[in-house]
Amino acid sequence: MTPPPHGGNLAWAVTLSGCPTSALLDFSASINPLGPPSSVLEAIQGALGALSHYPDPAYQTLRSQLGDYHQLEGAWVLPGNGSAELLTLGGRLLAELDQTWLVTPAFGDYFRSLQAFAAKIHRIPWQIEQPFPWASFNDLPIPPHTGLILNNPHNPTGYLFKRAEILPLLEQFRWVILDEAFMDFLPPAQQESLIADLPHYPNLIILRSLTKFYSVPGLRLGYALAHPSLLQRLAGWRDPWPVSVLAEQAAITALQDYPFQQQTWDWLSTTQPQFYQALQALSGFTPLPSAVNFFLVKMAGSATALQQYLLQQHQILIRDCLSFPELGDRFFRVAVRTPAENQRLLTGLAEWQGETVFR
Amino acid sequence: MTPPPHGGNLAWAVTLSGCPTSALLDFSASINPLGPPSSVLEAIQGALGALSHYPDPAYQTLRSQLGDYHQLEGAWVLPGNGSAELLTLGGRLLAELDQTWLVTPAFGDYFRSLQAFAAKIHRIPWQIEQPFPWASFNDLPIPPHTGLILNNPHNPTGYLFKRAEILPLLEQFRWVILDEAFMDFLPPAQQESLIADLPHYPNLIILRSLTKFYSVPGLRLGYALAHPSLLQRLAGWRDPWPVSVLAEQAAITALQDYPFQQQTWDWLSTTQPQFYQALQALSGFTPLPSAVNFFLVKMAGSATALQQYLLQQHQILIRDCLSFPELGDRFFRVAVRTPAENQRLLTGLAEWQGETVFR
Repeated sequence: MTPPPHGGNLAWAVTLSGCPTSALLDFSASINPLGPPSSVLEAIQGALGALSHYPDPAYQTLRSQLGDYHQLEGAWVLPGNGSAELLTLGGRLLAELDQTWLVTPAFGDYFRSLQAFAAKIHRIPWQIEQPFPWASFNDLPIPPHTGLILNNPHNPTGYLFKRAEILPLLEQFRWVILDEAFMDFLPPAQQESLIADLPHYPNLIILRSLTKFYSVPGLRLGYALAHPSLLQRLAGWRDPWPVSVLAEQAAITALQDYPFQQQTWDWLSTTQPQFYQALQALSGFTPLPSAVNFFLVKMAGSATALQQYLLQQHQILIRDCLSFPELGDRFFRVAVRTPAENQRLLTGLAEWQGETVFR
Repeated sequence: MTPPPHGGNLAWAVTLSGCPTSALLDFSASINPLGPPSSVLEAIQGALGALSHYPDPAYQTLRSQLGDYHQLEGAWVLPGNGSAELLTLGGRLLAELDQTWLVTPAFGDYFRSLQAFAAKIHRIPWQIEQPFPWASFNDLPIPPHTGLILNNPHNPTGYLFKRAEILPLLEQFRWVILDEAFMDFLPPAQQESLIADLPHYPNLIILRSLTKFYSVPGLRLGYALAHPSLLQRLAGWRDPWPVSVLAEQAAITALQDYPFQQQTWDWLSTTQPQFYQALQALSGFTPLPSAVNFFLVKMAGSATALQQYLLQQHQILIRDCLSFPELGDRFFRVAVRTPAENQRLLTGLAEWQGETVFR
């Protein structure tokens, strides 16, 4: 049975593991294990009475609240049906250019959004165990009408670019889409966001998501931050009511749940380094340093064989890296979960290692 | 204060009427007043536990259930984030052709979806108090590479085309998008759907919505029915998770709520003709015959003046027709609601008439 091209496809894992979704421990999607916050679930229930009305097509309240959170006017915010929807609109924008640069390995959905509009893709290969290939951006002159999609922190490595490293790139590309889907996992003082720089860069689109931090991938809510005239263009390419009234209320509530945010930062700042050290201590597995809530791990054997073993013997799902052709079967990605859940994975990995050595 | 171009914008009405949304009686959006069914609200609450997982990107269960409901295989179904999202994809398809025909007055979102991809629009004007202009389709040869968007029942008139009237058109156009958003308001025996004809017409896309019948415009769920190869093409133009897990469960449950469906047909079959007769009996107002849950009404005076009067004096919102340039200020549209609510509107109209005459 072939694994599906995307991560997060539980239907396949449920079939292979022979146990229901609820019994499966999912390390494959990098979702906050502390969520969804009860405040968000209550907000959704409280919004059920609004289902019989259309959402406000201008999303005034939602835009203004998201803007407030980032010290921006609401006109600088475009909410979407998950940031994947906004990425699709970005793909259409980039397809107007001669080419778009992608640092690979890159999140598969970047290719998907560009290919949906036949945009030309230029790959910048990054040997991820080596330093980032800045020379590719500095040595050659970048042709005009070139776009860039970058994510920070980077997926699948968890590498955090410095804001000062990204800023010079903004001068070189016609459009830059900066996917900050995992930035909120860093405490505010450690974030390297470019949101505050938006007013100086009308060619910059920043994507944000509520999916990972608030554990609501099933709800679909993300947003783009950019110059109002650019957002108006993107909005003209889609339908008038992309965000449900339930997602709208969930978002407004989530951003105000400071205790949940602090709890998440507290959990990650202690659990993440511990998990990293424990992974490092296992023979045959080498986690890459990461700034956020997931680790890319290099291993000696076959990651898909390990994936199958963990599913069938431990009801644990890890993310294989077959959808990143540069990584292939020697890497897997795991989310950081609660200490007890991380321990279950570590036990499974140790047993696999024992069994593999024994064979 | 200018009314917004779309219907269903309550924020504007709330400001003008000076009363909260809950106190406003909304005749402007043609939504079933009996819903949302409690089964659907319970299904959404039951699905809250699934929010922390991504939806199945293949939407296997949802497609198969929607397919079952229409005696089609799941591969013939493409669920979307409201049928407006699917209409946008349809706009991209039609933009590949030389032109697309629209019978006007037409739902404003048809223009929006075509213009989003710079599709060329050819208008077929229908003097709606006269018979439908079939001659426009029969007299001249239709150029190749021409598309058609039609809705049945027609919005804003409520006119129901016969299946046999539409079938010959399918031979003449490269792609036909048939919007059946209101068809489910007719009891099955009276429907004129072309769903059963899909296997014979690979150029036909039928759009359906749960929005109106199940009163969930705030949830966003619609679906397209068409040949699997065509749906695969459309799906390749959008993101992998357009439908939330909440909308997914709501849809599966709604289609199985036969008592709610029967209750709706019972309500409409008695209330609709009564409301029509009562509207006809008012001097100065002429409702057009309609097959479904709304009426287009012609009036002697200004519809926007009436709209403002009803909002301010009766907290009632009707749909002006300024977004249909062919209709302008002499028409308005009202939904059929419960008998008591319809009576409130009739009272408001009678009082307006009295006041107008008095002035």
